[in-house]
Amino acid sequence: MTTVTAYAAPSATDPLVKTTIERREVGPKDVLIEIAYAGICHSDIHTVRGEWGPISYPQVVGHEIAGTVTAVGSEVTLHRVGDRVGVGCMVNSCRECENCLAGEEQYCLNGNTGTYASVDRDGTITQGGYSTHIVVVEDFVLRIPEAIPFEAAAPLLCAGITTYSPLAHWNAGPGKRVAVVGMGGLGHMAVKIAHAMGAEVTVLSQTLSKKDDGLRLGADHYYATSDAATFTELANTFDLIINTVSAVIDINAYLSLLRLNGTLVSVGAPAEPLPVQVFSLFGARRSFAGSGIGSIRETQEMLDFCAEHGIASEVEVIAGEQINEAYERVLRSDVRYRFVIDIATLA
Amino acid sequence: MTTVTAYAAPSATDPLVKTTIERREVGPKDVLIEIAYAGICHSDIHTVRGEWGPISYPQVVGHEIAGTVTAVGSEVTLHRVGDRVGVGCMVNSCRECENCLAGEEQYCLNGNTGTYASVDRDGTITQGGYSTHIVVVEDFVLRIPEAIPFEAAAPLLCAGITTYSPLAHWNAGPGKRVAVVGMGGLGHMAVKIAHAMGAEVTVLSQTLSKKDDGLRLGADHYYATSDAATFTELANTFDLIINTVSAVIDINAYLSLLRLNGTLVSVGAPAEPLPVQVFSLFGARRSFAGSGIGSIRETQEMLDFCAEHGIASEVEVIAGEQINEAYERVLRSDVRYRFVIDIATLA
Repeated sequence: MTTVTAYAAPSATDPLVKTTIERREVGPKDVLIEIAYAGICHSDIHTVRGEWGPISYPQVVGHEIAGTVTAVGSEVTLHRVGDRVGVGCMVNSCRECENCLAGEEQYCLNGNTGTYASVDRDGTITQGGYSTHIVVVEDFVLRIPEAIPFEAAAPLLCAGITTYSPLAHWNAGPGKRVAVVGMGGLGHMAVKIAHAMGAEVTVLSQTLSKKDDGLRLGADHYYATSDAATFTELANTFDLIINTVSAVIDINAYLSLLRLNGTLVSVGAPAEPLPVQVFSLFGARRSFAGSGIGSIRETQEMLDFCAEHGIASEVEVIAGEQINEAYERVLRSDVRYRFVIDIATLA
Repeated sequence: MTTVTAYAAPSATDPLVKTTIERREVGPKDVLIEIAYAGICHSDIHTVRGEWGPISYPQVVGHEIAGTVTAVGSEVTLHRVGDRVGVGCMVNSCRECENCLAGEEQYCLNGNTGTYASVDRDGTITQGGYSTHIVVVEDFVLRIPEAIPFEAAAPLLCAGITTYSPLAHWNAGPGKRVAVVGMGGLGHMAVKIAHAMGAEVTVLSQTLSKKDDGLRLGADHYYATSDAATFTELANTFDLIINTVSAVIDINAYLSLLRLNGTLVSVGAPAEPLPVQVFSLFGARRSFAGSGIGSIRETQEMLDFCAEHGIASEVEVIAGEQINEAYERVLRSDVRYRFVIDIATLA
């Protein structure tokens, strides 16, 4: 065991505090990573506050991790000391179920092992990336291309792959009209990636306050959903809608924007069910789908794609002591577009 | 104008009565059909009773029509006098919108012209198949293969294509596990067609009362949805679920039966929305979709497919004077599996 510095939540209601946690010894197939930056995802806040169910404390969160390999186990073949690497939302899976065997371990039927607040193989609770180091089994560690700075790479491990995966699965590309609902951490990545894939991209945001950013990041069109005329004008328009908003939306209004055979994919999920009018679907053979992160193979593909197309996340770098303040700003949507913790400030 | 005998609804609450209606003269591109059999679809009942909105009366319904061509217009090239033909749920479309131009006129953006209770091109209200004759523009008339008797062919024009289309669109076939929810007029056709396509077919019905029929018609498995164990045992099983039940179902329970990338397609629609838990979708990249009938091209493909595979609808033939009694039996699900009116009894 190795003692490392981290920011942890002591309870569901207390602010995060600087503390130390234990990391396991580097096993034969493990990689030790010195973390450079860790992104702040809205899921981190839901988790530490117990909003997605009770957890044990203290808990370190963070699943957008970028850093450098500083040690490898004796059987490691995929990574070497000095490599630039990343870790996303999961650090293991059962490797036996049909989904794991199909290379879709994010959908592990036995439940993948989350990067934090999950029960690890050894029975301990996983602790996330707001920390100076992490130990991860080698095949859940990604290679970060040289072209992407660590701080801009970190959010790709969650916000990037969560939007890349449905865009790739539902064939966003030339000739396809893609709408992105919500212009936040996930939405801004969806815009960049869909644009890089060659799709015609429309942002559907509550207001036009981020319109300049949207167009700069690759959107062809930008509409305010607070304007009812948007839904009339854009009826039967999109092949694919990526909904990045986790709050309850008027799902039937958004479904009506799909053209024949179109799909609306939610990558976030409200706790409440969404009341779907089946007539909304079968008038144009529409689909309402969900997608969760992406596989390790696909995450690597996404990182390489982003490097090739010169894209990454737009970030605001903060020190560890600013995490609690950043949480409040995330809740106010006051960030363009992702907070990333400079882990050097934990030293 | 030609006066023909028909069974019509005089109001939303009165029984259907034998009467006469007018058919338009055969235009240059029209086909006059002497109807042999007309199927009774649950939609007929919803329509005449005003349950899908107010209509004008008297109204003749029926959109599962099989018969013989007895006259053709001067410019007709697709059909000849004496041909065995059918008419389904639509008799025209705008022919200009992107969906019509794509050969998917069932999803006409300007609204296809329904076989009954729709406003026709000439401003009259369309009158359906419970009638001795109908005049239809040639390209909305299907060829019925010799191998299929008229009475067994009639329900293919609605129940057949409504299930064939999603099965074909979502690639039911060898290696695919398909579930059919509901074992009625549509469900029994879904079983036959999915089996003929080579899929492994499971029926999910409220009880096991039709199990023998289900297995005889091609199902490999048959489960009662009234048994909660069904949902545990079949979790993460199906590639495709065809929901033929128009009543409100526990949609999240059914979605949980889909394996990775699976799709649940509703071909009926309750008036009430279905509360979809997005977590049900994104835990396995599932989709909830809707599908409405099929194109004319696909309907012909379906008829030829049924002839090739020796399948058609299971029917109970009735006389015109039994229509009202049959309606009550449809509402009690007391039919195996489709009532078909012998139009000769209207003479």
